[in-house]
Amino acid sequence: MAIDLAELAGPRHTAFLVMEMQRGVAGDLAAFPELAETCAERDVVGNAARAAEAARAAGVRVVHCTAAFRADRAGSHTGNSPFIRGLLRDPAHMLEGSGAVEVIPELLDAASDLESRRYHGFSPFTGTSLDPTLRSLGVRTVVAAGLSLNLGIPGLCLEAVNLGYRVVVVSDAVAGVPAAYGDAVMAHTVALLAARATSAELIAAWEA
Amino acid sequence: MAIDLAELAGPRHTAFLVMEMQRGVAGDLAAFPELAETCAERDVVGNAARAAEAARAAGVRVVHCTAAFRADRAGSHTGNSPFIRGLLRDPAHMLEGSGAVEVIPELLDAASDLESRRYHGFSPFTGTSLDPTLRSLGVRTVVAAGLSLNLGIPGLCLEAVNLGYRVVVVSDAVAGVPAAYGDAVMAHTVALLAARATSAELIAAWEA
Amino acid sequence: MAIDLAELAGPRHTAFLVMEMQRGVAGDLAAFPELAETCAERDVVGNAARAAEAARAAGVRVVHCTAAFRADRAGSHTGNSPFIRGLLRDPAHMLEGSGAVEVIPELLDAASDLESRRYHGFSPFTGTSLDPTLRSLGVRTVVAAGLSLNLGIPGLCLEAVNLGYRVVVVSDAVAGVPAAYGDAVMAHTVALLAARATSAELIAAWEA
Amino acid sequence: MAIDLAELAGPRHTAFLVMEMQRGVAGDLAAFPELAETCAERDVVGNAARAAEAARAAGVRVVHCTAAFRADRAGSHTGNSPFIRGLLRDPAHMLEGSGAVEVIPELLDAASDLESRRYHGFSPFTGTSLDPTLRSLGVRTVVAAGLSLNLGIPGLCLEAVNLGYRVVVVSDAVAGVPAAYGDAVMAHTVALLAARATSAELIAAWEA
Repeated sequence: MAIDLAELAGPRHTAFLVMEMQRGVAGDLAAFPELAETCAERDVVGNAARAAEAARAAGVRVVHCTAAFRADRAGSHTGNSPFIRGLLRDPAHMLEGSGAVEVIPELLDAASDLESRRYHGFSPFTGTSLDPTLRSLGVRTVVAAGLSLNLGIPGLCLEAVNLGYRVVVVSDAVAGVPAAYGDAVMAHTVALLAARATSAELIAAWEA
Repeated sequence: MAIDLAELAGPRHTAFLVMEMQRGVAGDLAAFPELAETCAERDVVGNAARAAEAARAAGVRVVHCTAAFRADRAGSHTGNSPFIRGLLRDPAHMLEGSGAVEVIPELLDAASDLESRRYHGFSPFTGTSLDPTLRSLGVRTVVAAGLSLNLGIPGLCLEAVNLGYRVVVVSDAVAGVPAAYGDAVMAHTVALLAARATSAELIAAWEA
Repeated sequence: MAIDLAELAGPRHTAFLVMEMQRGVAGDLAAFPELAETCAERDVVGNAARAAEAARAAGVRVVHCTAAFRADRAGSHTGNSPFIRGLLRDPAHMLEGSGAVEVIPELLDAASDLESRRYHGFSPFTGTSLDPTLRSLGVRTVVAAGLSLNLGIPGLCLEAVNLGYRVVVVSDAVAGVPAAYGDAVMAHTVALLAARATSAELIAAWEA
Repeated sequence: MAIDLAELAGPRHTAFLVMEMQRGVAGDLAAFPELAETCAERDVVGNAARAAEAARAAGVRVVHCTAAFRADRAGSHTGNSPFIRGLLRDPAHMLEGSGAVEVIPELLDAASDLESRRYHGFSPFTGTSLDPTLRSLGVRTVVAAGLSLNLGIPGLCLEAVNLGYRVVVVSDAVAGVPAAYGDAVMAHTVALLAARATSAELIAAWEA
């Protein structure tokens, strides 16, 4: 079915959610080399940045969904998943206040963007203010970019759909590990939940 | 790392969540032929049923996380994802009160099991009473079986981890479509969130 | 400020929430004599019933927010508040399946009303499907009637406002204990959160 | 029934929630004169500060539940309750970044306390990270102080009880408007949900 992006992602009811595009995840301080490589090959940062810029120009609010840990771990479930146990073997991993938790500069417009920071879990809605924030803004569609297709992006799509939002995933501004698995997640999980569009298609819709 | 199932899934703090093992999903009225075939090949229903029986014998509460639609669609987001639009092309799909929404009989002990029924979304925690139910029971670990590895099982794992639970997925009591994609989800998504154990391993731990 | 009830409670975006108007709370099996007396004096049941009937006639969905306990207490926090400890001294209090948990017959239209039953807590939104249900119906205003002004009604108003809904409380279809305290809650808490209208005013707005 | 404060508020499982004790609510920039007067008469700030100090000394985490508004109102429901419409008539009310939103200095230990800031609603749990934060810390009892008995404190108690926490309200570190109504809320609403103890009783329990 053809997607009517102009309607689906119409600026009056749309927000652009950027998932964990932080310096320590996909930027100059990236801790995940295989993911960083796929991001580089696909220009994930560049595609997300161009889409974010078009979003702002069209009046679509950009919300950075970021993750961090406090040094004392307050607010974080630190031992309840294999992934978190692995991450926290490095005591400095994504530490509040460090450069690693900053949004990648080319993706950020500090004057207009919002940030929804969480200290727990791997997806952006559960136990955060993201849903009330979007409701307060009249948002009914979320456009998603960022990392990763293993957890954060399908999690974002699932939570958003559960809450009643429509979702568009920017297909060239996401990545997973291994890269081919990321593509499979797009085809067999994300496709059930969300429309998929390239950054160029979104930019065209927002510039129209 | 070896998993200490006896501790991780200790009966005093564990619940067994059975995801959408309903007659219309994986039983005699199954609407998803490819999924049903994989379930049959792997004896997903049998493995889940044996694990559920061992759970009950050990004092682990079984909670059926089921899905249904009302004829008037109240409670359901009916148009916000490609999957839901596809499902609801059949006006009788998983209709409240029909046989399709019943738990597959060999998986159900109506006298002791709980049911958490939802009318919206594709994972069991968001917007339901499942979390308060588990908290009221003192649960800290959830063991998960059921369908599917495309949406429900990774969604269950993600929501549970976000909420602070530890998770074990019963590796021979789950399935996805295509089958090989389901295996990839276990390796590249579920493995980040949960321990994985066969039904035989869980039964052994619960019978010890 | 004059309230524009026709707009505020317009049928297309309004639901009528009836809080715990159950036989064991305010009906023939009422366990709270002082509350029952105030209800009788003010014809709370009659006023709520007439408002509910007008709601249905106008196309406003009626949702009964009910409470119950399972015999085995699964799903209920049983010891974390003085009130719950008092209630559960009676092992038969509001037992699932008993007449006490039924909605008072004159308030119920089983063919069209919805029920949101909870086993925990004292207000209707936290940890239930009420919010997704209302969102799926396009509801933006909730009209509230029922019991009591000590807990359930201010709790409903507060949760609803927190979630972004506008609220109208039916001022002659609510009650508290002591009766004068209920009036004070209307003046000093509910008035901050909600518009207040009599059942007659609402019926007039819905019949217009 | 006598309360065993040593057990109920035992430091290993307790957090101290300070509700909106901000300069613009009850401090030098207070916008609510009647509330400020009652606070002064009862030494609410002093009592809360002494209790907070004893909490920290006993290893009980202090969490400031604060409210603020962004200049552009993102994240806030701005028109859905009479109270919010009144507050926002002053465009500078509790503005993010202004002194009014700061925690009253004598109540704050910036090195150890946590803050849970919200931009919506009138109680601290709905749509915030407060519950995951407390769960991550192993908290099962919350001790509450702050403002006001009209909305925030009964709301905090209700949400906490709904979520399974036990609650203690510091009876001389809370206030409402009118003052006598606050006392009535303590007697007829808070008493159903929470134990009540003076700051001196709590300090004694924590120093024991």
